[in-house]
Amino acid sequence: MVEVILNGEILKTVSKAMVSLVSEARFHFKEEGLHSRAVDPANVAMVIVDVPSSSFQSYSVDGEFVAGVDVNRIFDISKSIKSDELVELTVVDETSLMIKFGSVRYSVSLIDPSAIRKEPRVPQIDLPAKIVMDAGEFRKAIMAADKISDHVVFRTNSEGFFIEAEGDVDRITFHLSEAELAEFNGMEARSMFSLEYLKEFVKVASPGDVLTIRLGNDYPGRMTFEVAGGKVKVEYILAPRIEAE
Amino acid sequence: MVEVILNGEILKTVSKAMVSLVSEARFHFKEEGLHSRAVDPANVAMVIVDVPSSSFQSYSVDGEFVAGVDVNRIFDISKSIKSDELVELTVVDETSLMIKFGSVRYSVSLIDPSAIRKEPRVPQIDLPAKIVMDAGEFRKAIMAADKISDHVVFRTNSEGFFIEAEGDVDRITFHLSEAELAEFNGMEARSMFSLEYLKEFVKVASPGDVLTIRLGNDYPGRMTFEVAGGKVKVEYILAPRIEAE
Amino acid sequence: MVEVILNGEILKTVSKAMVSLVSEARFHFKEEGLHSRAVDPANVAMVIVDVPSSSFQSYSVDGEFVAGVDVNRIFDISKSIKSDELVELTVVDETSLMIKFGSVRYSVSLIDPSAIRKEPRVPQIDLPAKIVMDAGEFRKAIMAADKISDHVVFRTNSEGFFIEAEGDVDRITFHLSEAELAEFNGMEARSMFSLEYLKEFVKVASPGDVLTIRLGNDYPGRMTFEVAGGKVKVEYILAPRIEAE
Repeated sequence: MVEVILNGEILKTVSKAMVSLVSEARFHFKEEGLHSRAVDPANVAMVIVDVPSSSFQSYSVDGEFVAGVDVNRIFDISKSIKSDELVELTVVDETSLMIKFGSVRYSVSLIDPSAIRKEPRVPQIDLPAKIVMDAGEFRKAIMAADKISDHVVFRTNSEGFFIEAEGDVDRITFHLSEAELAEFNGMEARSMFSLEYLKEFVKVASPGDVLTIRLGNDYPGRMTFEVAGGKVKVEYILAPRIEAE
Repeated sequence: MVEVILNGEILKTVSKAMVSLVSEARFHFKEEGLHSRAVDPANVAMVIVDVPSSSFQSYSVDGEFVAGVDVNRIFDISKSIKSDELVELTVVDETSLMIKFGSVRYSVSLIDPSAIRKEPRVPQIDLPAKIVMDAGEFRKAIMAADKISDHVVFRTNSEGFFIEAEGDVDRITFHLSEAELAEFNGMEARSMFSLEYLKEFVKVASPGDVLTIRLGNDYPGRMTFEVAGGKVKVEYILAPRIEAE
Repeated sequence: MVEVILNGEILKTVSKAMVSLVSEARFHFKEEGLHSRAVDPANVAMVIVDVPSSSFQSYSVDGEFVAGVDVNRIFDISKSIKSDELVELTVVDETSLMIKFGSVRYSVSLIDPSAIRKEPRVPQIDLPAKIVMDAGEFRKAIMAADKISDHVVFRTNSEGFFIEAEGDVDRITFHLSEAELAEFNGMEARSMFSLEYLKEFVKVASPGDVLTIRLGNDYPGRMTFEVAGGKVKVEYILAPRIEAE
C-alpha cells in the first residue's frame, strides 16, 4: 500500500518535529506527500509537518493511507540512521511499518489510527507581523533566553524584531533590525510565549534553515521552519502566555 | 623480570577486553607474548586475550611471569594514554607494575595471582557455522538490537547471516548475505544470546576490524576479534540462552 | 563610565578564573587595565587576574570604576560567546553591566561592591624554586593525580620537577627534567597541595600556555598562568597541606 524511499535526514526531521509534542500521531501518506499534525496534551501548541512527494527518492502510495505511528519509537530508530543514508518505508498490511536501511530491517507495529487523539483543525488566524530570518539565529536566542527565564516576549516595531527575557538579576535582549532580517513587513506586534515549548521547537532547525514567524498582539504565534535542505516544512502554532503586569 | 614496550592502543584494548568480564585477572607474560583469560562471575562468558611478542615494540621477559592485575585500574590509567604513544611496562619484583609514558610513571600494586579466581580451561567445542565479517557492522547491529530487547538470535542458513531481536511492538532484523560477508561456510545454525554480554564485547571493536563468529544450534558462540590493527586477538565464548517458545 | 571591547576568549578566561574560587568579585576597571582578586571562602587559595588595557580592542574608562560582579552569571553568559567574537562591556550607571555580542544584549545587575567580601592583600612571600613549563603538561599531571588521590606533592631537586600522588594501591610520578622544562633555577623545594583546588586552577590553561610555578618548603605555592594568547595573567596562590608522616 505504501512503498517510499527517502533520505535519513527527512525521517529524522519528521520524527523529531512530531516527538516534540506527542508520542503517537497519524502519518497520512497522500498522493501529494506525507502529512502529519497534532496538538500537545496540554492544548498549548500544534505541529504540522509536510513532506511533498517530490522530496522523496521514490514515492508510491496506493490511494491515501493513514498510519498510526509510535513517534517515540520512530525517532529512536532514526537516530541510528545516517543523514545521507537511503531509508525504505513499507506498509504492506495495516499492522506494521517496515523500515529498511543498510543491512537493517525494522518492523514496527502500527497503532489503530482511531485510537490516537483526534487531529486538530488548523486555525485560520490573522497575524499582522511577518518576519523571515535564519533559524539558527533564532535557535541561539531561544537557548540563551531559556537560561534565565521560562518565558520570552516576541515584539516587532519599526526598529525590527526583538526577543526579550528577564531573569531575577539580568535581562537579555536579542535584536535584529530590518536590514538583518531576510524579510520584515514592519507591522507592530507583541506576544509572550513559553520557553518550555520554544526550546523544543528549535531542535528541528539548523543554521541556514529559513524560518518564517507570524505574530499578533497577545495572540498565537506561527513559526514555519523549512528544514532538511528545504525538503520538509514544519509549522508550529503556539498559544500566547498572559503577561501579568 | 618483565620489561616491555608497546603502543598505547594495545594496552587500551587488552584492558578494555578484560574489564568487560572481570575486575581482576592474571596476565601471563610468556616467551611468545602476553596471554590472559577469565570467566565472568556468573559463568556465562569467557574472554581470551593474546598479544604475540611481535606486536610489542620491545619484549623482554625472563622465563614466564604471571602478574595478578587490577584490570579496572589499568583500564582507567590506559584512558589517559594516547593510542599512538609508547608505553613501557616493567615488573621488577612481584609486588608492583610500573607503567611509564611521556613524563608519567604509574606504579600499581600487583595482586597475589593465587588470590585471583582460577583460570578456566578453554572448552573444545565443535561449532559448524563460520562467519567472517566487519566488526563495526556487527557492533552497529548489537547496539541497535540492545535498544529494543535484552536478547538476540544469531542464525545462519543458505541466505546468509541474520541477527534478530524482538521488542514489545517492534522487531529488528540485521541481514548480511554471503556476498556481503568476508567469508561464510553456508552451514546452518541458530542460537540465542544475551545482549547484556554482547554489548560489552563489541566495545573492543572498531570499523575495519575483522570478526570471526562460530555458531552451533542452542550452543555457545565464539567471537574472535582481531583488533588494534591486528596486533591483539580477543576471543569471547558466550553461553546460549534458552529460547522459551 | 566604562566602555570596553574585548575578545570573547578574554571574558571567558577572566570569568573562568574567578569562578574557580568565588561567586562574587570586584572588577576594577583602572587606567592600566582590568584587575580582580579574591580569596575562597575557606581562605585556602587566592586568585589574581590582570588584563592590561592593551589586551582590549578598545578601552575607555573614566577614572577608576569598581564593579561588583556576579561571576557565576558572567561565566554562564560567556559560554554562549564564541572565542573570536567581539564583546562590548558597558557600565552607564552603577547598577547594571551591559554585555553586547552579535545581536544579543545582556543586562546584568551589579552588586554593591561594599557588600562583597573584602579583598585580600597579596602576600609578599619568598619562594626559592622557580619552574617555567607548558601549562597543558601541568594540567595533564593534575588530572591524572586527581584520579587516585586528593592531594599531591610538588618537589624540585637537581633532577628537576616532580609531581607525585599516592593512592591506596598505586602511585603516580610525573617528572620533568631541567631539559624538559622551559626554565628551572635548580633550587630544592617540597610542598603538598590539595587537588581539589589545583584541578580547578588548571581549567584556565590550554596546551601552549606558559605556566610559572614558585615553590618553597611546606609553604604556599604560586602558579602564574599566561593565558588567552598571553593577553590575560591569572595567578593563584595556594596554601600548603600538612604532610602527616
